[in-house]
Amino acid sequence: QWTLLDWKPRRPDMLVDPFELGRIVQNGFVFTQNFSIRSYEIGADRTASIESLMNHLQETALNHVKTAGLLGDGFGSTPEMSSRDLIWVVTKMQVLVDRYPSWGDVVQVDTWVSSSGKNGMRRDWLVRDSNTGETLARASSVWVMMNKITRRLSKIPEEVRREITPYFRECGSIVEEDGRKLPKLDDSTADYVRSGLAPRWNDLDINQHVNNVKYIGWILESAPLSFLENHELSGMTLEYRKECGIDNVLQSLTAVCNNATGISQDGGTVECAHLLRLESGPEIVRGRTTWRPKHANNLGTLDQIPAENN
Amino acid sequence: QWTLLDWKPRRPDMLVDPFELGRIVQNGFVFTQNFSIRSYEIGADRTASIESLMNHLQETALNHVKTAGLLGDGFGSTPEMSSRDLIWVVTKMQVLVDRYPSWGDVVQVDTWVSSSGKNGMRRDWLVRDSNTGETLARASSVWVMMNKITRRLSKIPEEVRREITPYFRECGSIVEEDGRKLPKLDDSTADYVRSGLAPRWNDLDINQHVNNVKYIGWILESAPLSFLENHELSGMTLEYRKECGIDNVLQSLTAVCNNATGISQDGGTVECAHLLRLESGPEIVRGRTTWRPKHANNLGTLDQIPAENN
Repeated sequence: QWTLLDWKPRRPDMLVDPFELGRIVQNGFVFTQNFSIRSYEIGADRTASIESLMNHLQETALNHVKTAGLLGDGFGSTPEMSSRDLIWVVTKMQVLVDRYPSWGDVVQVDTWVSSSGKNGMRRDWLVRDSNTGETLARASSVWVMMNKITRRLSKIPEEVRREITPYFRECGSIVEEDGRKLPKLDDSTADYVRSGLAPRWNDLDINQHVNNVKYIGWILESAPLSFLENHELSGMTLEYRKECGIDNVLQSLTAVCNNATGISQDGGTVECAHLLRLESGPEIVRGRTTWRPKHANNLGTLDQIPAENN
Repeated sequence: QWTLLDWKPRRPDMLVDPFELGRIVQNGFVFTQNFSIRSYEIGADRTASIESLMNHLQETALNHVKTAGLLGDGFGSTPEMSSRDLIWVVTKMQVLVDRYPSWGDVVQVDTWVSSSGKNGMRRDWLVRDSNTGETLARASSVWVMMNKITRRLSKIPEEVRREITPYFRECGSIVEEDGRKLPKLDDSTADYVRSGLAPRWNDLDINQHVNNVKYIGWILESAPLSFLENHELSGMTLEYRKECGIDNVLQSLTAVCNNATGISQDGGTVECAHLLRLESGPEIVRGRTTWRPKHANNLGTLDQIPAENN
């Protein structure tokens, strides 16, 4: 459809993708899509929330599959997956955020896939300011297949492998893997515990479970408000252990670790450990987050922040 | 900026608004913007949620003010409002939804403003399928001004009136006003009560209070899951009584009224009354919703719904 637009435009950057649906570039290996940040994607400090950023990552992943002509009847499932009742589930997600965009900013999200071990797929993302090219965020994730009837994990069937491997771009992860084991928190090691978190109807996605992006809000719910007011999430590693359905009730545990390693340049960076578990015990998500003092990285926009905070 | 695009396009509809930022049409009185429905804006039944729809309404309202060159330092505040610390707050919202769009659909949202009483502004919206022109939803709202320091309502200052009245399009509301008094629910008249609802950090908007769209999720939280699974919201009237901050804890009350009036053609329509109140007593939002049996209105997409629901 883009050939329609081939009319010697004066500003080609405004014309490549009128409906922001994205396109495949770099010899077929990279999918790229622009997003203008909308008013409802920003929070009290006027920048995009981490959930909005994660939503854009999800959207590009699905549009990548769709644009490649591989979208079966599901949330990113290929035709061969759909005929076998297989869906993708995420097992690990690592995100590093240098700067959060503001309302009206246009960000460019590039994404690509590669193999991960024998039965996994890695998907990476690079998020940039579409005007300046400045890197805003990088992310890497690992996905495996689950049977949507039995809810059990599955190997990658040969037929599915043949569908997806032509798109694999064999290269290293865009995020240096955080190989440190995520600690298992419990009531005695957590600093903050928030109980009674229940999925809402609108938290479910079309795979009939809570969408992985929703977990982030719950993880942050156990962090104290004063902390969220004064810090900005700079990095996050999440390990998804078990899916969560509409009937589950969760607990969110957070421990603040001040002995963050490897991040000494500003002294104000804080590391936290997180656990999201069912109230009945089983772990849903383990996580680690890093935080920097707010405005440490975007002094230029400080004058836009309202002084009052009532 | 749109003059740049004046090149005798073969498909002008693809070119009017490459970044979906919208534009002013109809002699300056109507702002129009297209949205492609994103994957994270749909729910378990693959259609856009009511919150997503409301988000699009909010976004067009703000972009209308911005495109008119009236955006001061705030969430839709004009320069004269900003210099007086005034912000817009919504007091009433009425929405009628004929059909919810699906992922990838492009919707066109038109919005315009007019006066409402002495110190209010009415804002209406028309949401259509951008391909077929089919009406998907209509909405009407009333807004007044609040001082963001004192949090008290304000008259419209003359200087502000001079800024905004040139944009008023004097015409009737697009939604026939539901003039019936909204009942005040209490523990004895409610069928369902959900307590302990607490705002999350990400629920706040840049006006430092819970964004009005977030209330909808809470209102629906007291409705039973089986009801949400089998019904689709067809209409909603909300009266906003008091703002809600980050420290508040809320209760959501719902009563199901089966004696719905004026909607007899399918027999399955249900009306509910709602109240969102602080646990300490004061009312935040009163509401009325109408629901139709799911798929009553979109049989054509029934075959896309997965049979399992685990």
